[in-house]
Amino acid sequence: MIPDAVLLPLIDRALAEDLEGGDLTTEATVPEHTRAVARAAARQELVVCGGEVFERVMQRVDGKLVVDRLLDDGTVAKPGDVLWTVEGAARSILMAERTALNFVQRMTGVATLTKTYVDALPTGSKTRITDTRKTTPGLRSLERHAVRSGGAHNHRDSLGSAVMIKDNHIATAGGVKMAIESARARAPHTSRIEVEVDTDAQLDEALAAGADVILLDNFPPAGIAPAVAKVAGRALIEVSGGITLERIPELASAGVDVISVGALTHSAPAADIGLDIAPLPETS
Amino acid sequence: MIPDAVLLPLIDRALAEDLEGGDLTTEATVPEHTRAVARAAARQELVVCGGEVFERVMQRVDGKLVVDRLLDDGTVAKPGDVLWTVEGAARSILMAERTALNFVQRMTGVATLTKTYVDALPTGSKTRITDTRKTTPGLRSLERHAVRSGGAHNHRDSLGSAVMIKDNHIATAGGVKMAIESARARAPHTSRIEVEVDTDAQLDEALAAGADVILLDNFPPAGIAPAVAKVAGRALIEVSGGITLERIPELASAGVDVISVGALTHSAPAADIGLDIAPLPETS
Amino acid sequence: MIPDAVLLPLIDRALAEDLEGGDLTTEATVPEHTRAVARAAARQELVVCGGEVFERVMQRVDGKLVVDRLLDDGTVAKPGDVLWTVEGAARSILMAERTALNFVQRMTGVATLTKTYVDALPTGSKTRITDTRKTTPGLRSLERHAVRSGGAHNHRDSLGSAVMIKDNHIATAGGVKMAIESARARAPHTSRIEVEVDTDAQLDEALAAGADVILLDNFPPAGIAPAVAKVAGRALIEVSGGITLERIPELASAGVDVISVGALTHSAPAADIGLDIAPLPETS
Amino acid sequence: MIPDAVLLPLIDRALAEDLEGGDLTTEATVPEHTRAVARAAARQELVVCGGEVFERVMQRVDGKLVVDRLLDDGTVAKPGDVLWTVEGAARSILMAERTALNFVQRMTGVATLTKTYVDALPTGSKTRITDTRKTTPGLRSLERHAVRSGGAHNHRDSLGSAVMIKDNHIATAGGVKMAIESARARAPHTSRIEVEVDTDAQLDEALAAGADVILLDNFPPAGIAPAVAKVAGRALIEVSGGITLERIPELASAGVDVISVGALTHSAPAADIGLDIAPLPETS
Amino acid sequence: MIPDAVLLPLIDRALAEDLEGGDLTTEATVPEHTRAVARAAARQELVVCGGEVFERVMQRVDGKLVVDRLLDDGTVAKPGDVLWTVEGAARSILMAERTALNFVQRMTGVATLTKTYVDALPTGSKTRITDTRKTTPGLRSLERHAVRSGGAHNHRDSLGSAVMIKDNHIATAGGVKMAIESARARAPHTSRIEVEVDTDAQLDEALAAGADVILLDNFPPAGIAPAVAKVAGRALIEVSGGITLERIPELASAGVDVISVGALTHSAPAADIGLDIAPLPETS
Amino acid sequence: MIPDAVLLPLIDRALAEDLEGGDLTTEATVPEHTRAVARAAARQELVVCGGEVFERVMQRVDGKLVVDRLLDDGTVAKPGDVLWTVEGAARSILMAERTALNFVQRMTGVATLTKTYVDALPTGSKTRITDTRKTTPGLRSLERHAVRSGGAHNHRDSLGSAVMIKDNHIATAGGVKMAIESARARAPHTSRIEVEVDTDAQLDEALAAGADVILLDNFPPAGIAPAVAKVAGRALIEVSGGITLERIPELASAGVDVISVGALTHSAPAADIGLDIAPLPETS
Repeated sequence: MIPDAVLLPLIDRALAEDLEGGDLTTEATVPEHTRAVARAAARQELVVCGGEVFERVMQRVDGKLVVDRLLDDGTVAKPGDVLWTVEGAARSILMAERTALNFVQRMTGVATLTKTYVDALPTGSKTRITDTRKTTPGLRSLERHAVRSGGAHNHRDSLGSAVMIKDNHIATAGGVKMAIESARARAPHTSRIEVEVDTDAQLDEALAAGADVILLDNFPPAGIAPAVAKVAGRALIEVSGGITLERIPELASAGVDVISVGALTHSAPAADIGLDIAPLPETS
Repeated sequence: MIPDAVLLPLIDRALAEDLEGGDLTTEATVPEHTRAVARAAARQELVVCGGEVFERVMQRVDGKLVVDRLLDDGTVAKPGDVLWTVEGAARSILMAERTALNFVQRMTGVATLTKTYVDALPTGSKTRITDTRKTTPGLRSLERHAVRSGGAHNHRDSLGSAVMIKDNHIATAGGVKMAIESARARAPHTSRIEVEVDTDAQLDEALAAGADVILLDNFPPAGIAPAVAKVAGRALIEVSGGITLERIPELASAGVDVISVGALTHSAPAADIGLDIAPLPETS
Repeated sequence: MIPDAVLLPLIDRALAEDLEGGDLTTEATVPEHTRAVARAAARQELVVCGGEVFERVMQRVDGKLVVDRLLDDGTVAKPGDVLWTVEGAARSILMAERTALNFVQRMTGVATLTKTYVDALPTGSKTRITDTRKTTPGLRSLERHAVRSGGAHNHRDSLGSAVMIKDNHIATAGGVKMAIESARARAPHTSRIEVEVDTDAQLDEALAAGADVILLDNFPPAGIAPAVAKVAGRALIEVSGGITLERIPELASAGVDVISVGALTHSAPAADIGLDIAPLPETS
Repeated sequence: MIPDAVLLPLIDRALAEDLEGGDLTTEATVPEHTRAVARAAARQELVVCGGEVFERVMQRVDGKLVVDRLLDDGTVAKPGDVLWTVEGAARSILMAERTALNFVQRMTGVATLTKTYVDALPTGSKTRITDTRKTTPGLRSLERHAVRSGGAHNHRDSLGSAVMIKDNHIATAGGVKMAIESARARAPHTSRIEVEVDTDAQLDEALAAGADVILLDNFPPAGIAPAVAKVAGRALIEVSGGITLERIPELASAGVDVISVGALTHSAPAADIGLDIAPLPETS
Repeated sequence: MIPDAVLLPLIDRALAEDLEGGDLTTEATVPEHTRAVARAAARQELVVCGGEVFERVMQRVDGKLVVDRLLDDGTVAKPGDVLWTVEGAARSILMAERTALNFVQRMTGVATLTKTYVDALPTGSKTRITDTRKTTPGLRSLERHAVRSGGAHNHRDSLGSAVMIKDNHIATAGGVKMAIESARARAPHTSRIEVEVDTDAQLDEALAAGADVILLDNFPPAGIAPAVAKVAGRALIEVSGGITLERIPELASAGVDVISVGALTHSAPAADIGLDIAPLPETS
Repeated sequence: MIPDAVLLPLIDRALAEDLEGGDLTTEATVPEHTRAVARAAARQELVVCGGEVFERVMQRVDGKLVVDRLLDDGTVAKPGDVLWTVEGAARSILMAERTALNFVQRMTGVATLTKTYVDALPTGSKTRITDTRKTTPGLRSLERHAVRSGGAHNHRDSLGSAVMIKDNHIATAGGVKMAIESARARAPHTSRIEVEVDTDAQLDEALAAGADVILLDNFPPAGIAPAVAKVAGRALIEVSGGITLERIPELASAGVDVISVGALTHSAPAADIGLDIAPLPETS
C-alpha cells in the first residue's frame, strides 16, 4: 500500500511528460468508444514488482480503467506469464501504456537483479543484502519497495533517519570517538550509529566508542573475516564497495551481517514486460 | 541551458527525499563554519554529462556554494579527471553530495553507454542512433540531454510531438492506409508520420500511403537490406527491437537511417564518479 | 480524454484562486442539504467546447456532483441549447460555477472564433487553419483542444517538438542553408524543419536546403501566389502575419497549405454560456 | 511587487509547457556564447503592463539575463516605444521570448481595453469601472493588476473576501432580507454585503435590510436613474450586464457608483508587442 | 464543504512527511487483509471539528476506507463520545492515524478554545469574537473553519480582501486621513476600511475621514467605553491586544462590536482525541 | 541549514495564503520607493528559533531585502532583545511581516516551551526529553528543529525511519515476540526496534525478544522505577503519556532514558515577538 499522497505526484509528473500535448496517433486512429483488454506479460524470467503503480497510472489517465493484478509483487514469473490486465477504453490504455511500462520495467528490473544477489547467499545464511541511497532521483520509495520485492532489505531511507559516519565526518569531528559521541548526542534514540572504518585501528576505536554498526568500506577481502572475529557480535558488520555477485557467498560465509549493493538501484537493467492489447466487442 | 522552471522541480523533489528530516550525521559532526572544496572526479572512462544539474543541486541546498565546471557535457574523461569542483560550507556539500551524484552518475551513465553505440557506427556513416520514450519516469528531459551528450540523437519527445503508428493503431484504424490518413489529418503539419510495419505487404502499403518514416520493428535481419532497397529513399527507415551493439555496423551498412535503442535510457548502468572532499582553512 | 494528470493541476489552481477562503455567500445562504440541478446553456450561437473540463471542475469541488454532457465538443449550439447539466448539492454547484464557466467560456470562445476562420475557407479547400504558440500561459493544452473543436488544426505544441527557424536564428547561424542543416542535425527525425523567409532570395535558399515547410511571414499579398508557384509542392507553405478573416479565401485560393492565426487563442472573446440553477426537492 | 511565492508558479508552469523538451531550433542554430540585446516595443498604442512578469520570465530561464524596465506599468506607450529591454545570452532570450510575450501581451491587452472604458467616463466622474471574477483560470492576480494599470478598480478578489448575494442565494435563503441577515452573520466584519436585485420590490427590500452595495444586474436602462434616486446614498450602486463602451457615459451620469465589466478580462484582445533581438559583440 | 482543490495539497503534504518511507512497523506486523474498525473518541470535553479532513486523510491513504461522521463540526462532545468511525484495511488505518489526528486535534483544539471566549460573552451580547491572521502557516483555511465551529467569527482572510491601516501605514501615508483616502481609492468597493488608532486624536481623525471600522489596539481599558460613546455607531469598533478571557465580559459590556483574539489560532492547545482500533473478522 | 528544496514550498504556500490577492493597504499607503528597517524583538523571555525561516520569508517576497541575524537559534533572549533585523523596501517588509512572524512565533514558542522541560531535569541528568510525531501537519521539519533549539531531542522523524510497536501491532502480529521478530526482519539494520508495553508481563516478553527500546506508555508512576531496575540497561526506557512538567524530575531520577512529550509541538503557545518598523531616508 503506497498512499496516493506519495504515489500520485510521481505518476502525474511522468504522465504529463508524455501526454501534455495529447497523443496524436491514438486520438487520430482509435475511435473514442473502442474498448480493449491488455495483458502485461513477462518476456523474460523476472520478479514481479509495481502492480499498484501499474494500476494507478492506468487510472490516472482514465478513472474507468479496471486493472486486475494476477501476480503479487515479489512473485517469480516465467516468460509468458501474465502479471496484470487492464480493461476499458482502448484510447486510454494506449495513452497510458508507455508510462506504466516505464515504471514497472524499472521496478521489476530492480527486483529481478536483487533476487540474483539474494539467491547467491548460502542456504540458511543470516546475512542481509541491502540497497543504498544510490537511487534514482525522485523514485526512492518505489525502488526501495522493489528491493524488498526481490527479497533483500533496505538501508536507511534518508539522511534524517539514521547515522552513518564517513571519513569526512571523522576528519572534521576530530576522530572516530568524537564523531560517534557527537552523533549519538544528536540522533534520535531510535536510530543506530553506523561508522565507516578503513583501518584496523579505526575499527578498534569504533568498537571502543560503542558503534552499533561498523561499515567496512572497500576493505581488503582478506581483512574481513578477521574483522568479524574481532568484533565478535559487539556490533553489526556491513560491507560495501566493489561488491560483485561472485563475492556474495564468501562475504556471507565470513559472517558479515549486511552487504550493501548500490548497483541494485543505480544499475539494474529494465526487465522486459510487454503489453498485449486486444480490442473488445463494443458493449451495447 | 535547462531553465530553472524545468530543472528545479526535479532537483527539489530529489533533495526533499533525502533531506526532509535533515542530515543527522553531518549536523552532528561538521562544524557550521567549516569550509571545504570538493572535486567530482571520474573513476572510469566516461562521457561527461550533467554539469548544470550538479551545480543547481549544490546551490539548491546552499545558494552560496560555488561550482566550477571544468569539463563540458559531451567531453570524454579519463579515470582521475576532475569534472567539476564545488567550494563552500562543508556541511552543505556533504548534504548535497548523494543527490548530486545520483543525478550525474545516471546522466553520465546514459551518455557513456550511448557513445559505445555511436562509436560502433562505421566511419562516415549517416545512420543515427536514437533514444526512445523508454526513459525514467520524471527524468526524460535529463536523459534526452544525456543521449545527445553521448553523440546520439533524440526520438520524438512525447506522444504529442509526432506520429508513430503501431500495430494496435493500424488494427483499430482499419489498415495502414487509413491509419496514416487519419493521423496526417490530425497531426500538426510540422510532425512527420512514422508507421511501424511488420511485413513486406505492410511496407508496400505504408509507402503507398506516403509515410514519412517507416519503422521496421523486430524485422528479420535478412529482410532489412531488401526493405531499404525497396523504399529507395521515399521514406526514412528506422529499425528497433533486439538491437545489440554487435548489430550496429551491419544495420548501418544496410543503409537504415535510424537505429533506436531503448537500452540507452532504460538499462544504462550508472557511471562511477567520486566526490573527494577536502577541508579548507577558515577564512578570517 | 485529457488525463487527470494534465487537467487537475489547472483546475485545482483555478479553484484555489476563488475558494481558498471559502464562499461566504453560499455558506451563509444555502442550506447544506439543498439539492439542485443546473443547466449550462448557450446564450449565443457557439461551438461547444470543454465538457470534460466542466465535469472535472464540478467534481473537484464535490465528488458527488453528477454531470451529464448533452452535446459533444465541436457541436454547433444555438442560443438556448443546453450543453451540459450538473446535479447535486446546491452549495457545491454554486461554489464551482464561476470557475467552471471561466474555463468553458474561454474554450468555447476559442472554438467559436476558430470556426469562423475555417468556414471562410472555400468549399473543398485543402488549406489548413492552425493556431500558434500564442496561447494563454498555462492553458495551452486546453486551447489547442478548443482549436480542434472549432475545426482547425494545431501547429507544433512546443519548442521541443519541431523546428521553426526565424530571422534571428538565420542571422546567428550564418544564413538559411547553415541554419537548416544545423537544425536537421539536431532535431528528431520525426520533426519537420520549417523556415521563415522574408524575401524571394531566402525562399530559393530554403528550397535548395530542403526545408520541409516554408513560412511566408508578413509576405506581401501579391507575392504569395508566385511563391506557391515557385515552391511547386517541394515544401509545404505556411503564411502568417496580418491574417484577417477577409483574407482567408484569397490565401486559400493562392494554394497555401497552412494559414496560422495567433488571434484564435490570444484574442478570442469569451463565448456566452449561462448556468441556470434550479432547486430540487430533497430526497428522503 | 508580486511576490515570487505567487508569481513563480505561474511562470514556471508556462515555461515548462513550451520548454520541457528544449528548444530544438535555438539550440541548433545559436551558439552558446552569442550575446544579444532585445527590445520589447509597442506596435500599437497601448497601456504598459507586466514589466515585472517580463523580467521574472527572462530570469527564470536564465538568471543572468538583465532586464531594464523603461516604462512603468500604467504608462501609455505609442507605437515604437520601447517598454523593456533584456540583455544576455541570445539563446536564453530566444527560449524565453514567446512565454514572456504571451504573458505581457495579455496583461497589456487587458490594461489597454480597460483604459478605453475609464476614458469613457465623463470628466470628473466618481463612478468606478471594475473587473469581475470572470478572469482567466490561474491568472487572476495578474489580470487584476492589469485592470488597475488601465486605471480601473478591482471587484472582490474571491468568494471568500466579500458577500455577493445573487438570485439563487435569495431563493434558497428565503428572500432578500433573510439572505442579507444570514450573510452578515457569517461574513467578516471587514466585508461589505452586496445584493443583486432584479426588481424595484427587491430593491426596497435590500435597502430595508441594510445592504451595503446593491447590484442592478441587467436592469432596464430607464430604471437606473430612478433606482439611484431611491437609494439616495444609503448604499453603493453597481450595475452590470450588457455593459458596452457606449453606455458608460450615460450610466455614470445616472450616478451609479460602480460599473463592472466582465469583458475587461474575459474578452480583451492581446496587445501587439514585438521583441526585436540584436546580437551583441562577444565580450572578451 | 472544503473543495479537494484546497484540501488535498494540505493533506498530501502532511501524509508524505510521515509516510514517504513507508510504515516499517505496520507493514511488518499487520497482515495485508486484516480489517479493522476504529473509533475517534473525545477524551475531554471539546467542540468537534475536522470531520471532513479526517475522512479525506483516511481516503488519501486508502480510497477504500469508509468513514462515518457521527457528530457534526461545532457539536459539543463529552469525554467518551465517538466523533467519527473508519472501517477498512487495518494497515491503512494505522498508517493514516497519526496524520489524521494531528489535523483534527489542532482543529478541535482551536474550536474548543474559541468556544470558551464565545461563552464568556454576556447573554444576548452582539459583540463578536474573531480570529486574526495569526494562523499556522499553510493551515489558515482549516483554522478559520475551526474558529467558526467554535461559534466565533473570522476576520479578513488575507491582505487582499480588506483594508487594515496600521501605524506604519499611517506614518508613510502622511496621516490617518490621507491613509484612509488612499486606501479607499485602491480597495474594492466591497471591502471595508479599518484603521487602527492609538490615541483619542487619531480616533477623531479616523471618524472624520469616514473609516468603516476602527481598531482600538492595546487601548487602555478605561478608554474603551468613552471611545464607544464618541463613535456612537458611526463605525464598527474592534479591540485587540492583551485580550484575556477575563476581559471579555467587560469589553462586551462596553459595547465594542468586535474582539479579535490572536490566541484562538496561535496558542490553542491540541484537544485530546483518541483512535481506538479493533480488528474485524475477515470477510469471506 | 534547511535546504531551499525543503523550506521554500512551506514558505511559498504560507505567503500565497496571505498575498495571492495583493496587500490592499500597503500598496495604497506606502510609496514604492520608501525604505525601512525593521527589528524583530522579543517581548517576553524566549528561546530564539527560526532565523533562517525569517530571512527566507522576507527574501521570497522581495529578493533585495537584507536580513541580519543577531542571535542564533537556541539563544535565550530577554524582553527587548533584538533577534533579527531586515532592511529594504518598506512595502516588502510590511507584506512579509505577518507570515514571517507566524512562522517564527510558532517555532520560538516550541523552543521556549521545550526549554522549560529540559530545565526541569535534575542537574547532570542523562535523561532526554524528546518530541513525538504529534507535529503540525506540514511543519514537522521546522518543529523538530525548534525542539532541538530548546535543548531537547527528536524522536523518530517518520513511520519509515524506525520501528515503534504499539498495542494494535502486537494484537495483529500475535504477541510481543512475534511483533518484534517481524519488525526486525523488515526494518533497516540502522533502525532500532521500540516496543510499547502496558504490563509487567509484556515487559518481560519484550526484553526476552531483544527490544532495543521499551516504551512504558501511561505506566503507573509507581511501576516505573521497578521497570527500570528490571531492564537493567538491556534496553533503553522511554516513558510517555500524561507527562507534566512537574513529573520530569521524578521520572529522570527513576532512571528512564527518554521522556517523550507530545505537548512540545502540539500545544506550545506562540512566543511574543514584535516587528518594529522604522522608515529610512531615501538613498539618492
